[in-house]
Order: sequence, then C-alpha cells, then structure tokens
Amino acid sequence: MDSWSLGTILVSWLCLLQWCNGELIESLPGQPSDYVVTQYSGYIVTNEKHGRSLFYYFIEAASANHTSLPVTMWLNGGPGCSSLGFGAFMENGPFQVGEDGLLVLNHHSWNLESNMLYVESPIGVGFSYSNTDEDYIDWNDTKTANDNLVFITKWLEEFPLYKDAPFFLVGESYAGHYIPQLAELILKYNKDPNATQINLKAIAIGNPLLDIDISVLAGDYLWAHGAISDKTLMLEKTVCNDSTFLREYAKSGWSQGCNDVFNRVQDEVSLDVPFDDMLLPKCMSTPSSQQFKSQGLHAKAHASIDRIRALGDPCLQSRIFTYLNRRDVQIALHANTTDLPYRWDFCQGPLVYQEQNLEIDVIPLISDLIKAGLPIWLYSGDQDSKIPLTQTRIIANNIADDLKLTTLTDYRTWHNGKQVGGWSQSFGGLKDGKNVTYLTYATVRGAAHEVPFTSPSQALTLFRCFLNGSPLPRPKS
Amino acid sequence: MDSWSLGTILVSWLCLLQWCNGELIESLPGQPSDYVVTQYSGYIVTNEKHGRSLFYYFIEAASANHTSLPVTMWLNGGPGCSSLGFGAFMENGPFQVGEDGLLVLNHHSWNLESNMLYVESPIGVGFSYSNTDEDYIDWNDTKTANDNLVFITKWLEEFPLYKDAPFFLVGESYAGHYIPQLAELILKYNKDPNATQINLKAIAIGNPLLDIDISVLAGDYLWAHGAISDKTLMLEKTVCNDSTFLREYAKSGWSQGCNDVFNRVQDEVSLDVPFDDMLLPKCMSTPSSQQFKSQGLHAKAHASIDRIRALGDPCLQSRIFTYLNRRDVQIALHANTTDLPYRWDFCQGPLVYQEQNLEIDVIPLISDLIKAGLPIWLYSGDQDSKIPLTQTRIIANNIADDLKLTTLTDYRTWHNGKQVGGWSQSFGGLKDGKNVTYLTYATVRGAAHEVPFTSPSQALTLFRCFLNGSPLPRPKS
Repeated sequence: MDSWSLGTILVSWLCLLQWCNGELIESLPGQPSDYVVTQYSGYIVTNEKHGRSLFYYFIEAASANHTSLPVTMWLNGGPGCSSLGFGAFMENGPFQVGEDGLLVLNHHSWNLESNMLYVESPIGVGFSYSNTDEDYIDWNDTKTANDNLVFITKWLEEFPLYKDAPFFLVGESYAGHYIPQLAELILKYNKDPNATQINLKAIAIGNPLLDIDISVLAGDYLWAHGAISDKTLMLEKTVCNDSTFLREYAKSGWSQGCNDVFNRVQDEVSLDVPFDDMLLPKCMSTPSSQQFKSQGLHAKAHASIDRIRALGDPCLQSRIFTYLNRRDVQIALHANTTDLPYRWDFCQGPLVYQEQNLEIDVIPLISDLIKAGLPIWLYSGDQDSKIPLTQTRIIANNIADDLKLTTLTDYRTWHNGKQVGGWSQSFGGLKDGKNVTYLTYATVRGAAHEVPFTSPSQALTLFRCFLNGSPLPRPKS
Repeated sequence: MDSWSLGTILVSWLCLLQWCNGELIESLPGQPSDYVVTQYSGYIVTNEKHGRSLFYYFIEAASANHTSLPVTMWLNGGPGCSSLGFGAFMENGPFQVGEDGLLVLNHHSWNLESNMLYVESPIGVGFSYSNTDEDYIDWNDTKTANDNLVFITKWLEEFPLYKDAPFFLVGESYAGHYIPQLAELILKYNKDPNATQINLKAIAIGNPLLDIDISVLAGDYLWAHGAISDKTLMLEKTVCNDSTFLREYAKSGWSQGCNDVFNRVQDEVSLDVPFDDMLLPKCMSTPSSQQFKSQGLHAKAHASIDRIRALGDPCLQSRIFTYLNRRDVQIALHANTTDLPYRWDFCQGPLVYQEQNLEIDVIPLISDLIKAGLPIWLYSGDQDSKIPLTQTRIIANNIADDLKLTTLTDYRTWHNGKQVGGWSQSFGGLKDGKNVTYLTYATVRGAAHEVPFTSPSQALTLFRCFLNGSPLPRPKS
C-alpha cells in the first residue's frame, strides 16, 4: 500500500471521528483505478435561513505532504458559470471525460502543485442552490462576494487541516469581478483580530473582465486576427463598440446602430468560430460523444485533418455535460441531493444576475489590493476575443503607471520547457531593500479564454510560478 | 499494371523518340514504392551566352487524364528562396521528408488538381545557376521576369503535351513581385500573334510582398497577437515603422532610431517565435533529424505536449536540407550536374539582389492585370507577421475601391469541409451580363507564411477553387 492510499484511509477514519466533516468521494464513476487521489465534495450552507448552499469539489494535492501545500480556490465566471464543469473537468482538475465516458487523467492537473477547491458560485450555478426563490432574482456581485467569504470560513472549519495553509484565489473571465471583490472582503475580514485568519497570499485571473470600457474592446483584436473586415472595424470605431454594445444590453436593449454593427460582426466572425477561441474547430461528434466511432477510418482521418491548429478537444464540453448529469456521478459527488428541478449545466442556470453589475469597474480595486500588498497575476490566452489579451495588457500597464510601479521583468517571451509559452511582464517596487513583484501580466501562446483547457502544460507552469511568487521562466541569454 | 504506370512507360518511350526532352525521374530516393507519379526535373537554359540555367521539378497530376488538367508554375520568394525546398518539399508537392529520411506522401499535394511545375528562380537560387559571375551581382526583378518568361516558353517546347493546357502562376511572399511582373510580360508576349501563346488563366499569391508602404507594416498585428508591448507599438508608430526600417536597410543602413526600435521588437518577439509563424514551436530535433528518437518515451511525450497549437512540423525544414544535399538525391533529380561550389540551401545562395527592388510598388500592376481581365487571388496565412493578413486585406480593399469593383461575396468565413478554413471576400463586376470575379482575398485560419506547410487541407481547398474560378466554399445558411 503506498502512502497516498494510507492517507486516504487515515483521512476517512479521521472524518468518522468528526475531525473532518467534508464528504469524501469514494471514487468517481469511470475513474482510473490506478490513480489514487483524495477527493471531497458536497455542500456548504452559506445562509441557513434562506437555505443557500454552495457546492464544492475539493481535490487534495497529489503529494504525501499535501497538508503543507497551499489551497487554491478556483472560480469560473459568467456570471453564472460552473467551476465544476469548466475549472475542474475541462481545465485544471485531475480528470477529463474520455470518448467512452470513462475518466482520463490530466497529466497537468493543478493538484500537482496545490490542493484544489472548485466552488460553484454563486447559488443557481451548477449544483449550488437556494431554497429561497427570491435569491435567484437580482443577485449581484456583493452577494456573491459575501456568500463566498462565508463559504471559505465554513469550509476551513470543515477542513481544519488546511486552516493555516497558504490560500490562493484563481479564476477567469467574470471572476475578474468575483475574485478582487472577494479578496477585498477577506482582507477586511482578516482585520478582525478575533476572526480565524484566511491566509490569502495572492490572486490570479485569466482573461478577466475588469471593466466595461477597456476589457471587452475586441475590434482591433478581431481585425488583426482576420475575423472582421476593415469596414466593420471602422463601424466599431465610429458607430458602436463593444463597450457601448454591452452597456445598451445591460440597460434598455440595443439601439439600431449597435444592433446593425454587431449583427455584422457576428456574420463576419460566424457562429462556427468561437469568440473564446479563434482557433478551436467545431465538435464533429454526435451528442452521445461517440466521436468518429460510427463513421469509420476515413472520417477519422478527415476529422484529424480538419482540426486546424487546435489542441483543445472541441467535444470535451458535451461529454462533461453528459457525465455530470448522470445520476451515478451525482451520487458519487454528493451533488444534487435535493433533486434540483433543472439539469446541471455549464452556464444556463436559473440565476438572474443584476445586469448593471457589468458596469462595476474593478480596476481601482485591483490597485487598492496591490497597495495592500496582495500580489496579482493577470494572464490571458491569446486566442480569446471575448476579453482579448490586448485589453488586459492595457489595463495592467495603466495600473502599473498609476501606482508608479517599476518594470521588474521586461515585456518578453516566457518559456514552457524549451518552447515559448507566451509573453509576460512584471511590475513591482522596492520593499525592505528587495524588489517585490506586485503585478504580473502574462499571455499564453495559442491558448483560449479557458487557458488550461487548450494549454495544460503552459498553464501548469504559469500556476507553479504564481504559487511560488517567482517570475515566469525565461531562457538564459 | 495501372494506367499511370503505363503512362509513365509511354512517356519515357516518347521521350526517347525526342517527343519530350524533359528529364524523367526514375524514382526519388526513399520514395514510397506504391505511389506512382510521373516526375521530371532538370535544367532549362535561359541564356546560352551567359550559361544561365533554371532548375525545375515537374510533377504530373495524379490523374489518368493529366494532360487535360492545368499546369501550375509555383514560385517561392525571398528574393532568393527555393521553390524546390519550400514549395515542392515543404508545402504542396507529393512528398515530404520523414524522420527516417524516407519520403512520406502528402495527401493534400496540389498535383491532385494540377500538373505542378516548381522553378528555382532566379539563378543563384537552389540548384539554378549562371556560368557568368556578373549575373549574380545586381540581379533584379526585371531580369527575374525576363528569365522566367524564357523559361516558360522553352519549357513548353520541351513539354509540348502541355502547350495548350490552362496555365496558372502561384507563389508566395516576394513572389508578390515575381508573379505580377511575369504575368505582365506574358500578356505582352501573347500580343505577338506569331508567338506560341501561353494560356495564362489566373494568378495567386500567398502572403505577398506587394509594396513597402503597406504590405510589411506589422506593428498592429504583432501588438494584437501579444508579441510586442503597448510601448513598442507606440515607438513603431512614432519613431520607426517596418516600412522605414526596410527602406533604410535597402539604402544606407539603419538609423539609430530604427535600430533601437527594431532591436526592441526583436527582443520582445524573441528568436524562438518565428516571424513567419507565430504559433510554430522550435524544432527540438538534432541536425540528423532523429527527433526524440534517442531521448526515450518521456521526451517524446514532453515534446508532444510542447507543440503548442502547431500542425506544421518545425523540424521538416532541416530534414529537407539534409535530403536535398544528398548526392543520390541530386543524381535522381538531375540536379547540380555542374558541381556548384556551394550547398543547396533554402535561401542563402550566392545571389546578390538589387535591394532597391524592395521599393517597387506592385499594386498598380495588380490593378492593370485585373483591368486586362486576369483574375487574381491574394491569400494570407493568418499567423504570419512578416506580411500580415491585415496589410494584404487593406491592399485588396484599396484595389477594389480604385477599380470600383463590386463585392461579390461578403467578408465572411469560408469552409474547409465542416470547419472554418479562414475568411474571404471577392470582388468583381458585370461582364456580358454575368458577374465575374476579378479579385479574391482570403485568409487561412491558423496558417503560416507558407500556407500549405501548416494547413495542407485548407490550402488544397483554396487551390481547387482558384483553379476553377469559383468562390471559396461557404456553409449553406
């Protein structure tokens, strides 16, 4: 018996003795039998009166000394998208769903470096729910952050082994709202000397929505990637840009001008080119995920030819959808214990989010967090036109300028093994006579909106450096 | 014996009877034994007095009725790069060099659609040469075009079976100079009623250098692909842009300002990210091309992980270099019969090209050719920053505006099978009451400067439509 198996048994035993209230996962259906990892999942009640419960999936680090490793809480965006479906099963968890419905090991799972805590947040997302119907209407960023803080404090009570572990917050997209707001709450909470401190060390957000004026402006990006014409770029610049488009959407609906321009953008880009990954091919699989199987060798060869330059599997998402809606999977996960009146889904839950929250500008908050000494990473898959790398870079530069940070590492390529993983720049300043990095910006070459999905190896390298607070690897010159 | 083998024997026999002076290739070293294709190669003397000889490699179409199919002459750019190394062996010929040095079939070879004629042009490129040293100094576009015209007329005399075949000119990069200038010469030549007509139907150029003011401006492109910083883009816009940089290079050398800006660009992009393919990984092979072989399975897995999103094999070029310098290969190709005092190379031949030729603006000539009724395709691999798609698109739009052409197909995606192959737009006008396409612009999604290298399937689809004069496939709406 190896040390992990022993660890699993020990933890189960401790759990029986009420040292641990987390719900241990015996094994997920289809899980490779030779891979031993300790996983928990279940619900944390964040508001007893309303019956609000957030679902989590926790994977201990694949290491004998996992309790000395950090805890990373991962949040997907949306608002309203699932960290279980995207984060855990599509991006950086230990398992992905194979073509036969069995789980396949992800050799670049982030639990190689950290204990990973995926939270379906807020309520109405995935398996998370409220027993109070009104909660689903007019939900907002403040409520998300508050519930997430309650979640963390209660989760740490259930998992006391990790109370002192370094704590990291990582996520993507609309988590550009969630994470800084939650970090701010944590820093405030920690000021109470009676509170059990949350050992928050740093935050990282991929392709983050930080504001509505800069983050989403995709015209130049789409133009330079061939996806819109010169004329449409001009219309975006003169008639209606992405910011105006989103603002109108969040308020009273689209004007004729915006409607015309963005119909044109949609026509030019086409529905077959995902905005979140300009290089991803279409999934050619049937809904039952039997990709190519019934079509013989010729179709298989043809499909492989058609894959363009994608490493991400365009059919993975539909297999995850099938998997997480299986009753045996939900039982193994201790999920959907209250028989939710809808299917688990990546994003389309019952939640109605306050659309005005789109207007919240998180950039000043990022600055405040840096001033409070919290290191921040903003990274960007460079094939994403939803929140293009160009815009996050502008924001990073603006913050560095405003705070008068020094460039600690120049804008240059970083390396993943012997290959260029992307570009990065870091900013900081002197603290006690030593250079300290406050802000790191990084692109991931060839990566999508969901960076670890297309680029698991690059993403793991980036995550490792983030946890260590070290610059991304550069070739020796 | 199938009809092709019979054809080969028949042609060999006709050749013996002096009906054909082309030099038949028996078989290339390492050629798959089960693939039957008729290939010729050798020299055409373009100037007897100077002893100028252009090397060609001609592959008949893989069809029983190949003589009824077109002849496509392919030209690589540079100036000074080899159509044999790039075009035939790396891009769209029937064979590529495998890791074991044996030839591997390219299932998207352009000889599925056309007889393919690769010409190493001008002299000093690859196996082409002159016996007059002065020819190598101060060579220029006019001389290239003149020699290529002589080549074609003489080649058609040697291959009389193809005298009436539709003739197409295709190439890339600096062939943006070669091809329009050659086409103009051909149209002039054809005006002589006594001349044997060259049945030129259309021309296509990939990622073409057409002028120095627009074609090469890569600042916005590199910025939007994450490869240069905001600050460097600003320096390109204010201090020195790519046009100025190239102009200074072609004249007296770089000013301090240009030097500083482009050192900065080079540092940011890094030497590990090829300007001609922003997604291509580094070749991790030893020069002997034994990629991964001696490094065990672990290295192999690692390398495959490191491939980012590239379909092009980054080590192919070094294997081709080795192959074409093999004596047995040169003998089979009837190449290097005069023992050239240098090795065959992709670009670094003995030729000194008039650098001022960079200044030649080919755009007005493109317009003239269209006015003369010659259909033109400008296509662009969208991962190339040498001649970015954005710039060729601007040029296509300018030409369409100047000539008051109508948009016949909107700027939209085109499809390769069920996947988006890229974006395209075509322009034309009424002729005899029918819409006729004069100018087609197309990007190839995920493709490099050498489009068929990374994207053989997309490239073949594009080539097929070009030959047929039909628009690129679009999904039925």
